[in-house]
Amino acid sequence: MKASLLQKARAHYQPKLPKALVGAVKVREGETTQSVGDQDEIKKLFPHTYGLPVIHFVPGEERIGMKMNVGVILSGGQAPGGHNVICGIFDAVKAQNPENKVYGFLMGPSGLIEHDYKELTEEYVESYRNTGGFDMIGSGRTKLEKEDQFEKGREILEKLNIKALIIIGGDDSNTNACVLAEYYAAKKYGIQVIGCPKTIDGDLKNEQIETSFGFDTATKVYSELIGNIERDANSARKYWHFIKVMGRSASHIALECALQTQPNVCLISEEIEAKDMTLNQVVEQLAAVVAKRAEDGNNYGVVLVPEGLIEFVPAIGRLIDELNDLLAAHGADYRDLDEDAQRAYILEHLSKENAATFETLPNSVAHQLSLERDPHGNVQVSLIETEKLLSDMVADKLEKWKAEGKYNGSFATLHHFFGYEGRCAAPSNFDADYCYALGVSAANLIANGKTGYMAIVRNLSAPAEEWEAGGVPITMMLNMERRNGEMKPVIRKALVELEGAPFKKFVEKRDEFARNTCFVYPGPIQYWGPTEVSDRETRTLALENANRK
Amino acid sequence: MKASLLQKARAHYQPKLPKALVGAVKVREGETTQSVGDQDEIKKLFPHTYGLPVIHFVPGEERIGMKMNVGVILSGGQAPGGHNVICGIFDAVKAQNPENKVYGFLMGPSGLIEHDYKELTEEYVESYRNTGGFDMIGSGRTKLEKEDQFEKGREILEKLNIKALIIIGGDDSNTNACVLAEYYAAKKYGIQVIGCPKTIDGDLKNEQIETSFGFDTATKVYSELIGNIERDANSARKYWHFIKVMGRSASHIALECALQTQPNVCLISEEIEAKDMTLNQVVEQLAAVVAKRAEDGNNYGVVLVPEGLIEFVPAIGRLIDELNDLLAAHGADYRDLDEDAQRAYILEHLSKENAATFETLPNSVAHQLSLERDPHGNVQVSLIETEKLLSDMVADKLEKWKAEGKYNGSFATLHHFFGYEGRCAAPSNFDADYCYALGVSAANLIANGKTGYMAIVRNLSAPAEEWEAGGVPITMMLNMERRNGEMKPVIRKALVELEGAPFKKFVEKRDEFARNTCFVYPGPIQYWGPTEVSDRETRTLALENANRK
Repeated sequence: MKASLLQKARAHYQPKLPKALVGAVKVREGETTQSVGDQDEIKKLFPHTYGLPVIHFVPGEERIGMKMNVGVILSGGQAPGGHNVICGIFDAVKAQNPENKVYGFLMGPSGLIEHDYKELTEEYVESYRNTGGFDMIGSGRTKLEKEDQFEKGREILEKLNIKALIIIGGDDSNTNACVLAEYYAAKKYGIQVIGCPKTIDGDLKNEQIETSFGFDTATKVYSELIGNIERDANSARKYWHFIKVMGRSASHIALECALQTQPNVCLISEEIEAKDMTLNQVVEQLAAVVAKRAEDGNNYGVVLVPEGLIEFVPAIGRLIDELNDLLAAHGADYRDLDEDAQRAYILEHLSKENAATFETLPNSVAHQLSLERDPHGNVQVSLIETEKLLSDMVADKLEKWKAEGKYNGSFATLHHFFGYEGRCAAPSNFDADYCYALGVSAANLIANGKTGYMAIVRNLSAPAEEWEAGGVPITMMLNMERRNGEMKPVIRKALVELEGAPFKKFVEKRDEFARNTCFVYPGPIQYWGPTEVSDRETRTLALENANRK
Repeated sequence: MKASLLQKARAHYQPKLPKALVGAVKVREGETTQSVGDQDEIKKLFPHTYGLPVIHFVPGEERIGMKMNVGVILSGGQAPGGHNVICGIFDAVKAQNPENKVYGFLMGPSGLIEHDYKELTEEYVESYRNTGGFDMIGSGRTKLEKEDQFEKGREILEKLNIKALIIIGGDDSNTNACVLAEYYAAKKYGIQVIGCPKTIDGDLKNEQIETSFGFDTATKVYSELIGNIERDANSARKYWHFIKVMGRSASHIALECALQTQPNVCLISEEIEAKDMTLNQVVEQLAAVVAKRAEDGNNYGVVLVPEGLIEFVPAIGRLIDELNDLLAAHGADYRDLDEDAQRAYILEHLSKENAATFETLPNSVAHQLSLERDPHGNVQVSLIETEKLLSDMVADKLEKWKAEGKYNGSFATLHHFFGYEGRCAAPSNFDADYCYALGVSAANLIANGKTGYMAIVRNLSAPAEEWEAGGVPITMMLNMERRNGEMKPVIRKALVELEGAPFKKFVEKRDEFARNTCFVYPGPIQYWGPTEVSDRETRTLALENANRK
């Protein structure tokens, strides 16, 4: 593997470690905890891991090095900093006792089930310090949720004499880590399970977790690109750029990028849902911004669209629900008809309200919604080119307004989708530090015999030295939600809060952003240079933490 | 305008200036020059600006500050560093005499014709130092080529007492600068015209111009993104990413990015043309790489596609030519038919060979080629999603091979197009330095009474202090080429040379890149940090300069 020059130089970066994690640590226990909802059910489902205290690490006395082998899994989509979590684990586990071993299970949870693993050596780990990607041990989306999987896992964990398994993943993976911890505890297998909060989407956060790792780096990469495009728009002054950014189930990425780059419009799915807006209303709002800017002679601009938007439009959500049922019951009747006949069949069988929504959709989207489903039976939202759908509908609206004499401008569009560009970027200083500290924290939870905990690092707006480290019982984050028709214990996803500081900040400014050109160009992530440039946290985190105080 | 933190810190960067441009300079004349082709015609067309010597700047004695007002135009597509060219001009012109004024003509050449301009003040210039974009004075694509335009320009230039006009642009704009210089010289208006080599495409270079500005920064931004996607591909191991990069008339960008990131495949339009390959052959070559990697269990990879590819496939080029004629002669007969009837009509009227090519094309592309034209009568190549076209055709081919038992893998694809993401990035240290030096060089050409010259800075692989500066008569780069049916003097475009060092380096490695995973992840542009990271030139330039010695 040939390392780039940046990678070689960056390999020497020593992540800043909170004082609380330097040297030996001891546990200070906080109060016992309760789940965020459905306490009785959760308590019944997790008798061995419920109600545990929050844990804080404080400086402790030197301990005799504990023998503990550790297994690690990367689960789900890539997020910058995953390698540094593993490096933190590795260094802390080896610091306990150089004979300890760290095993990586390969290509996600399936590596555990299929006994596909690799012992991580100092030399191997070395080449992954401060790098992006999950290629060190690979990742995967296999769900670890069945007893036979847990038992297959136990076989290899016992064979390798592994004391604890660390699962680095998003909300689902951490829910599964909790279920696994409870199962091993109930069976008295003596294997601990620890989670780590990963996801660029930023939707795994709560009172205890200030942010998930990867969000910082990914949003900085997207903001670099959005800023560059804004500067292009402002130089050429002839295009409206519609930019879709990742984030299917929450709009944190779009909102953070909007705070960093100040585009003319940023749609927030959660707001559209809360206001029960129709797609047509969204389009009218957009067209109004375009028309207003045209009055000032500004026939250009930038619009941010969160990936998941379509599903948040309530009318479309209801339509999708009915289409799902229709497809299940009558799919065979229309699957092979030609497009026109298909459309007619579907229109005839839909309720009046949903038929009306269906009729407003362009053919390509209507077709997508009526037929294609992913293996889990969900509409493949990522295949819908929402950015093009919106700009086409805005163009139609403006055409109409032009005929009515209400608009007089030109509307030429360009489209972009940013997602894969940021998931594997080399972690920013923030993510490099945060992830390394999470890894060290996870190792210390293990050394202290904890299971069913998620490693946490807090106070993240302060300099890294002052960050606080510890662990939170995963059960504390659980509530019961319906999944595939069944009530299940799951970590509650954090959506954009319309009363939260980041959204309110955006609302305060957005009329000005819309009419004027307030673009800000953040530029690429800097790993060196002035600290106010290279070490700054996201706006979301800064605003939320300011509010916490 | 709110500046980002990076922009604020970066504003303090003082571009490194070649020793030859520090303090007072004098001119050392080289030998007289000849045009690269059609010497007799070019000489006849440019009696006042032909055959001038190449100019080198060497340290000179302090001169009495010359009074000289200067006008500046940004022409054509954005390229990182344009603002720094203007900053270099501004500083050098003011250093001559603080009373000198610099005027920016707004939104490209049309600003000159329409007398739309802005005097650049110290304070205004300050906020644009080391920034990307052309928003300082805007840019535009109006062609400056007619006498009445030249005369309209003269009016305002004389009114503002402007001694010289600097046109910052690509090959066409510099050709026009040359025609304008000749015109003003012939008319004895006493207004000098100087060009500056701008274009991210990298196709404005020759024996005198080592590289055009912007190529360095833009290819580094694209390589950052390609590297991030490669790392994602190598982590998830389930997608083939087809990435189109800008570069319609040459493949320098794709080639440079390939040298930086080592993807599995990079198509080079010039090679496809030289080998007279059909689209089907290109597709088979691609499918073969996918199939080979599948044999090793690697159902993922990255393919780079230059934007202009389609037009370079000779069979498609011939088809487009005939379609152009058909559209001109019989467009009215089929424009309003439905798609099937249109296709039938066209097939019936095409020559046998071109009909065969037409039939192999997917409907969407066939439709695009048969109808849509830009205002200049050209196929709108940028609207053809070549990356999707290729991956669709590869999928079909693999399907066939699978049926024949020749392939056994999975082929899931994702698509990207990078262009607007890089044109307005903040210039790399290289482009910041290079552009500033070009600006200072241009000002010195003016102070020395030169016209019809392009400002140049050479020896660019050495540290900036050792760069050489001067000017080249633009006539030296001209030859006669057919444009819109007429022979015209134009700057010869530099295509990727199949015998050149960069392409040969790539050919040497590409079989290994194709079969194995040799990805390199360059990361984002660094403005601070180790110089081997922050100050490195492109591979293309390094290889070409090594060859020059």
